[in-house]
Amino acid sequence: MEKTYSFKPIGHIKRPGAELEADWSDLTSESVISIDALYSEALCGLEEFSHILVCFVFDRREGVALKIRPEEREEMPEVGVFCTNSFMRPAPLGITVVKIIKIDGTEITVKGLDALDGTPVIDIKPYCGFDYEVKDYKIPAWLKKLWDE
Amino acid sequence: MEKTYSFKPIGHIKRPGAELEADWSDLTSESVISIDALYSEALCGLEEFSHILVCFVFDRREGVALKIRPEEREEMPEVGVFCTNSFMRPAPLGITVVKIIKIDGTEITVKGLDALDGTPVIDIKPYCGFDYEVKDYKIPAWLKKLWDE
Repeated sequence: MEKTYSFKPIGHIKRPGAELEADWSDLTSESVISIDALYSEALCGLEEFSHILVCFVFDRREGVALKIRPEEREEMPEVGVFCTNSFMRPAPLGITVVKIIKIDGTEITVKGLDALDGTPVIDIKPYCGFDYEVKDYKIPAWLKKLWDE
Repeated sequence: MEKTYSFKPIGHIKRPGAELEADWSDLTSESVISIDALYSEALCGLEEFSHILVCFVFDRREGVALKIRPEEREEMPEVGVFCTNSFMRPAPLGITVVKIIKIDGTEITVKGLDALDGTPVIDIKPYCGFDYEVKDYKIPAWLKKLWDE
């Protein structure tokens, strides 16, 4: 029997108006990450960062796919789901880098969070640019094409 | 009763010689991420990326701390654990960006993975630089100091 690992949410995302899948993609809107009071001390000093990684659970997704076409576009190649950020991946874990707008107690207002209202958050990590370790990286041509559009 | 979310590993890390906590920090050595055959299709196309985000479980950590001193150094300020990548965080989730050395079937050889031998992996995501969305970011002075040393 394969072991599984359980994660307890540290808070939830408040994003009124983003109750449906179709509303995910608007990255110009603000969301509030509401952290449980139990963890308020763990936020101490977070205001010194401009961005954070938000780790959340795709709690309303149904089904898993091993291969997909990015954004379900016909002109895109079919690739393994680990090459994408699709919620169809085996573990329903989402990670997004967002900009902190303000922190008010245990409420973190951010911009650019592509998650639904009520989404459970399991972790917050500081965004440190990664460029201190990744100087040179490459991505597939299909992804460049997707970004360029 | 608070809901928890269970994640099933998609594979494990092979890193002989890194069985103890003290061995985590050597980022020059190579590790192998051994993905379960069940998910082999999900890796299709991953060779077109140079780097990946590896999401793993701190399966042997004990205890949680809300505030810590980075790297347990006395001269560092005490900060919330969400400002750090410490394994003492509430959810035992580790995320590291690593360079792909080679992919041989379901075995991904990488460099720079700070995890112990046998660590369960729950997800792999493509590293896309993040700079397409984060143009300008700031980090605390204490972190700059830590990196400079």
